[in-house]
Amino acid sequence: MGPNTTQSLPLARSSVLAAHKTISPLIHRTPALTSSSLSGSLPGKNPLYFKAENFQKGGAFKFRGASYNLSCLTPEELAKGVCTHSSGNHAGALALAAQQRGVKCYVVMPNNSAQPKIDAVRSYGASITFCEPNAPARAATLAAVQAQTGATFIPPYDSVNTILGQGTALLELVEQVPEKLAAVVAPVGGGGLLAGTALAADGTGIRVFGAEPAGADDCARGIEEGKRRPDVDAHTIADGLRTPVGVLNFPIIQEKVEKVITVTDEEIIEAMRLMWERMKIVVEPSGAAAFAAVRNKQFQELGIQGAIGIIISGGNIDLSKPLPWVRVHTE
Amino acid sequence: MGPNTTQSLPLARSSVLAAHKTISPLIHRTPALTSSSLSGSLPGKNPLYFKAENFQKGGAFKFRGASYNLSCLTPEELAKGVCTHSSGNHAGALALAAQQRGVKCYVVMPNNSAQPKIDAVRSYGASITFCEPNAPARAATLAAVQAQTGATFIPPYDSVNTILGQGTALLELVEQVPEKLAAVVAPVGGGGLLAGTALAADGTGIRVFGAEPAGADDCARGIEEGKRRPDVDAHTIADGLRTPVGVLNFPIIQEKVEKVITVTDEEIIEAMRLMWERMKIVVEPSGAAAFAAVRNKQFQELGIQGAIGIIISGGNIDLSKPLPWVRVHTE
Repeated sequence: MGPNTTQSLPLARSSVLAAHKTISPLIHRTPALTSSSLSGSLPGKNPLYFKAENFQKGGAFKFRGASYNLSCLTPEELAKGVCTHSSGNHAGALALAAQQRGVKCYVVMPNNSAQPKIDAVRSYGASITFCEPNAPARAATLAAVQAQTGATFIPPYDSVNTILGQGTALLELVEQVPEKLAAVVAPVGGGGLLAGTALAADGTGIRVFGAEPAGADDCARGIEEGKRRPDVDAHTIADGLRTPVGVLNFPIIQEKVEKVITVTDEEIIEAMRLMWERMKIVVEPSGAAAFAAVRNKQFQELGIQGAIGIIISGGNIDLSKPLPWVRVHTE
Repeated sequence: MGPNTTQSLPLARSSVLAAHKTISPLIHRTPALTSSSLSGSLPGKNPLYFKAENFQKGGAFKFRGASYNLSCLTPEELAKGVCTHSSGNHAGALALAAQQRGVKCYVVMPNNSAQPKIDAVRSYGASITFCEPNAPARAATLAAVQAQTGATFIPPYDSVNTILGQGTALLELVEQVPEKLAAVVAPVGGGGLLAGTALAADGTGIRVFGAEPAGADDCARGIEEGKRRPDVDAHTIADGLRTPVGVLNFPIIQEKVEKVITVTDEEIIEAMRLMWERMKIVVEPSGAAAFAAVRNKQFQELGIQGAIGIIISGGNIDLSKPLPWVRVHTE
């Protein structure tokens, strides 16, 4: 059993390597996909390698961080279970990772959460407590659940072990790609995936970029202003990227990420459609943000030569609703 | 250069192996996907291995047969180009395979073909001649194109080389699966894929099943009646499976396929939705038919133990239209 959450490894590439060794037997080694059609559509014809975390257990990269967090708990902590608050992929990932080890999981969800997300969390055997859809209610409800159960809180992004776990996707991608990556692009919401990716790339010469919705651009603006913006008035279709960037995550991104590219919802929808049509994969809007950034002028003007890694963060989308480009056309 | 179309190999497993050797450098070795959730949903919990031909070049298995047909032409034949009639995946596959080798391609399409299919064929550089949407007009138009160009007709399914090419998908699946397959299920329209799969399985002990829409069940009924039915009044969402089974294809299927399972459109749509939601892949209705057959009572009652191969024939679907389960719910 690894160290407990209060004894995390340092935020460094070597720690991401150690985390990967720990979780490798628990996670899917998702494929690195290519598409000659999408590579050929770029001005520089860069070879593109898509890390398909939409094929990860639970349908998103979040399973990596959740698995690593569980690996770091003591037997005493595991016996009491884990808890979190989330309306999105982190809750499902934690519930699934806990179920995989026979650990109890308690999830606090806003009472306006989407039904498929509620169903997913429930199908993984977690106990759900609903709360009013605001931050104080969420915190109070989580505190009550913790007081009653003694469960350990597993944060969705603002935590060393979560960051280290999420960084493992890039390690695999580097192994899977037959050439050296010139750059990698990952989406940024709370910043667990982007900070982890930046740590995993540290010292390798791979240039790291973030992709952020223009309607939730707290990270890009924070970097510009030299100071983390603690909240965001998010208006974007990319529901996984509406969160403000975390306290631990921001300085790592500030130091190690070359640029956070902002993309409009139209660009995200167009990138998503191309991925569905040409690659035949189901990708959620947040999962298409990194490819949208690569297609964006801000990125293309950098004139990067060579292979580019693109992290597809997830594929959890409510398929009972019209696809976003269909909605755009009919409304 | 291989033999010309009039000098085809025999319809036997060894010929499928030879065809695979020929086309391997030209095609994608598509992945064999697994889904613990979908395997677990079956009464027998059979391990399922999905051959993802939706990831094949051109988005369907048809690229295999088209590539093999081209490999069998003489330089003189190649210089004059190839032609076909099709409103579906075969036209796109042949156009793309021809483009890959710098060979001219002429396609006769009904003037009511779906715009995305027309766009695909055109984007692969083929020359399109439109005709009235009926069999005599199609045949007359094709004959005129052939007379004018000298191009070789590449049949969509009723041809030895097409059958041998399509059979190569199972050869790869067998290599990719870490255990022995107890059975394999492939959809049947014209029967190129199913006859090829049956030849590829010959002598291996793998039981072969077909999956056919109940609304286009000419193959299942022909087998029952002991005689091929040359036409079909097709009513099914699975547009790739509306064709009657071919003259060459039928006796192979009759002899080597254990059973053709018929599935309703509702079953196809449900299987398709499960594949999109759980596997995060874009599959067309025809591509979901084999999984629908595996879930069907006719198949489950056989009580087959062990691993089952499922061939996902393709993923070419018009994403600008509502998804079929969304349409079902709103109409």
